[in-house]
Amino acid sequence: MSGTVLAFLCALTCVSWSEKLVDASPPNIIIMLMDDMGWGDLGVLGQPSKETPNLDAMAAQGMLLPNFYTANPLCSPSRAALLTGRLPVRNGFYTTNGHARNAYTPQEIVGGISRDEILLPQMLKKKGYISKIVGKWHLGHRAQYLPLKKGFDEWFGAPNCHFGPYNNSGRPNIPVYNNSEMVGRYYEEFKIDRKTGESNLTQIYLQEGLDFIRRQSLARQAFFLYWAADATHAPVYASRRFLGKSRRGRYGDAVMELDYSLGRILSTLRSLAIENSTFVFFTSDNGAALTSAPNESGSNGPFLCGKETTYEGGMREPAIAWWPGRIAAGTVNFQLSNVMDLYTTSLSLAGISPPDDRALDGLDLTPVLLNSSQALQNRPIFYYRGNQLMALRLGQYKAHYWTWTNSLDEFKKGVNFCPGQEVPGVTTHEQKEHTMQPLIFHLGRDPGEKFPLSVLSEEYQDALRRISPVVEQHKKTLVAGIPQLNMCDLAVMNWAPAGCEKLGKCLDVPESSPWKCEWPH
Amino acid sequence: MSGTVLAFLCALTCVSWSEKLVDASPPNIIIMLMDDMGWGDLGVLGQPSKETPNLDAMAAQGMLLPNFYTANPLCSPSRAALLTGRLPVRNGFYTTNGHARNAYTPQEIVGGISRDEILLPQMLKKKGYISKIVGKWHLGHRAQYLPLKKGFDEWFGAPNCHFGPYNNSGRPNIPVYNNSEMVGRYYEEFKIDRKTGESNLTQIYLQEGLDFIRRQSLARQAFFLYWAADATHAPVYASRRFLGKSRRGRYGDAVMELDYSLGRILSTLRSLAIENSTFVFFTSDNGAALTSAPNESGSNGPFLCGKETTYEGGMREPAIAWWPGRIAAGTVNFQLSNVMDLYTTSLSLAGISPPDDRALDGLDLTPVLLNSSQALQNRPIFYYRGNQLMALRLGQYKAHYWTWTNSLDEFKKGVNFCPGQEVPGVTTHEQKEHTMQPLIFHLGRDPGEKFPLSVLSEEYQDALRRISPVVEQHKKTLVAGIPQLNMCDLAVMNWAPAGCEKLGKCLDVPESSPWKCEWPH
Repeated sequence: MSGTVLAFLCALTCVSWSEKLVDASPPNIIIMLMDDMGWGDLGVLGQPSKETPNLDAMAAQGMLLPNFYTANPLCSPSRAALLTGRLPVRNGFYTTNGHARNAYTPQEIVGGISRDEILLPQMLKKKGYISKIVGKWHLGHRAQYLPLKKGFDEWFGAPNCHFGPYNNSGRPNIPVYNNSEMVGRYYEEFKIDRKTGESNLTQIYLQEGLDFIRRQSLARQAFFLYWAADATHAPVYASRRFLGKSRRGRYGDAVMELDYSLGRILSTLRSLAIENSTFVFFTSDNGAALTSAPNESGSNGPFLCGKETTYEGGMREPAIAWWPGRIAAGTVNFQLSNVMDLYTTSLSLAGISPPDDRALDGLDLTPVLLNSSQALQNRPIFYYRGNQLMALRLGQYKAHYWTWTNSLDEFKKGVNFCPGQEVPGVTTHEQKEHTMQPLIFHLGRDPGEKFPLSVLSEEYQDALRRISPVVEQHKKTLVAGIPQLNMCDLAVMNWAPAGCEKLGKCLDVPESSPWKCEWPH
Repeated sequence: MSGTVLAFLCALTCVSWSEKLVDASPPNIIIMLMDDMGWGDLGVLGQPSKETPNLDAMAAQGMLLPNFYTANPLCSPSRAALLTGRLPVRNGFYTTNGHARNAYTPQEIVGGISRDEILLPQMLKKKGYISKIVGKWHLGHRAQYLPLKKGFDEWFGAPNCHFGPYNNSGRPNIPVYNNSEMVGRYYEEFKIDRKTGESNLTQIYLQEGLDFIRRQSLARQAFFLYWAADATHAPVYASRRFLGKSRRGRYGDAVMELDYSLGRILSTLRSLAIENSTFVFFTSDNGAALTSAPNESGSNGPFLCGKETTYEGGMREPAIAWWPGRIAAGTVNFQLSNVMDLYTTSLSLAGISPPDDRALDGLDLTPVLLNSSQALQNRPIFYYRGNQLMALRLGQYKAHYWTWTNSLDEFKKGVNFCPGQEVPGVTTHEQKEHTMQPLIFHLGRDPGEKFPLSVLSEEYQDALRRISPVVEQHKKTLVAGIPQLNMCDLAVMNWAPAGCEKLGKCLDVPESSPWKCEWPH
């Protein structure tokens, strides 16, 4: 073999070899999931206070996805969807106790994530990832449902929302876990001052995250960090350093602390020199909870209504992907995408084939993220409440088959998911069916869903012609999972979590007396 | 004198000399004023379509002012305020024909900008500036009111809005002027296709602006360019190259063309190497005209209502200041500021003392712009309709003394300034007085003006205590100008503008028959 030929072959081999090396070394994965943070809370997405310099910088260094969605306008189903890659109606995170109701995992819920579901950290184990969840779990708080039973190697955080304080007689305070044992309870060992809003929980979550990253980096160990801080969920909190710092009040203080924390995490990746081998994604679990406004709610920007609803304000999420050297800096991609794609995309990045024994709703976004393509043009977005498909988006068109904010009774009691907003025939206080003639909006011209297209227009007919077969196909092939959020029981609450004996914090468990949970909206 | 002392003196002298040189050479000034463009239309301010790369880059290279306001929620008074540095109630651009009515300069208006007002280009002449207006004037279309009578050296554009087409019998089409003579009319020589929305007017305005800049640069002549394109005012238009390009429809096409044009202007400054000696300011004349939604209206982002109203959506404006080398790149300044400040600030930059024989409402923003300070902490923002002070903002607090969207009659006919929005007691269809107990909002926590503070709260009382004396002082010292927008007459319309003979385009003037103009809202 001549020297020239050898050099030629070597050039070929070396290139493909180094490419293989890159491919063979799967990136670390960090998913930062905010709680009730709205699309309009980021400076880069139009928050007038512009108090998120680190998020704005993250967008400038990465990719902004203005058309990113959650799978459900409520926390538990949204989180279940993210970790399973499947719509809540498939993974069981819904209720059939009422029509089109949002259900979640309060302390009295009996159910949790089904043992048949395969969570992202379980899959990532195949390539040796170590996984940690920091913060809110919300996929069931009974022993069998907890994170370490579902593929996570580490956990610091709580199984439920930080509601309270309770007096531990009618209802226990929520436990905080370190791995598989509780280390205290909210409002007790882990203070949240309801009056001042002071709590150092975000700082604790930050340190937990940084510590995990440093340990894995030192060990040259591939990792998955699911950082699920919840300071922006009412009751909103921030640590003393941030209280009173925002122009927006306490909610803004919480956002500033989360923004600061995110900045710390990204700068730590850089200082550990692993930023080029770490994929980071930032988003939120559902739209801002406008019913907590004005003091404890975020902003959904120009979008209609908020959390609990299937209008854009309930389901459009802020989303930034960051991976220096792999994701082009300062890009904006309008691909329709959602939290379930994070499952599929993470697997793709890790070089793991997704489960082939079940329907997955997530798509692999790597062509979008790494090549800035808009490859998945015809992918729809589904808007569910319970097991009811409320609406569907395809391209710029969104068709509402059912509209409902909440009941008139609830509304009259002050529960308002759309304060200051009212679009006749769109925001409705009765469940209104439009199946025969869906309300269709062009979300480019009308992101606020205020001007339904005329059913007589050619545009309406064209849009409907494209949307109808997608809906039919979806319904025809959908196999709903067993609903996990139907039964409630006071006996299942966090009375005596593992580890309570060591702390002397076990509470008496009342007698079991299950009932069908009531889901008002 | 020893050499050391000499060198020391020289050092001192040289520094102050070079500083003086900088001071002595006043910058060129470009004010780009959009028409009915909303705060939420810019990518950098949260427009989901993110279709304004040049504006976003301008903000990244300059200063964004999220708390910038117009002086009136309607075009003519807003433009009069910008060019006089005075509130419309002072410069006469209001009506007393009805209470709290917005008035402007339709073709039948008899009045125009008062001869007693001193416009910015008149002042700038003192330092030898050459001034040009490109686009919409709107300060009166009768011969005595036109731009070249008020300090501008050049004009290419029209005196009124591009409404039409008319048949030239009941109402003439609007003339387009080149300096002091008409060169054609809209819909005739200057086409606007109402059906397709096609018109090359923005391209013409762009070329006029670029040509002016190049000529002055070549002559090393200080200049003021007032670039007032109107493509985003209904009927919205764009040239063929931009039609159909936006995700937002025709309105978005117009925005994209304006964004492109702005980019061309800035890049021309750079290619002429005068970017370091040119101060550029971008803003809009009032909030997006939501009553033209969805196809011909922009977005006011998270703010309430739009054009014609004194809610934030009517008066908060997108605003970017740009001056490479002098204004720090990528800054955001929360100073409360307004279009009248552009008068005072321009004079300050040019080294000209403002008129001292009249009250000015503009402040000198140079400390804010050049030193990023927030020097003018206690400066209020006034919200007027006609000669009625509707509301006042001080710091984060805004107090509404009167609320009104429009009459119920008008509303029922489909004129809706707040589509999809309704805040009980805030958006009102009767003129509602709150003088004894103003509605007060905290605009940081509640930019959408949805949650009035409780009058019983300490916060309300504190805010009121600070606001009341400002309102009292303002009212006590205010000397209203003679209202210029009270009388109408068909005889004053654009029948026979100067230059019409040459074109054979003079129309017969009907007999004069003046009446008091009706201003419905």
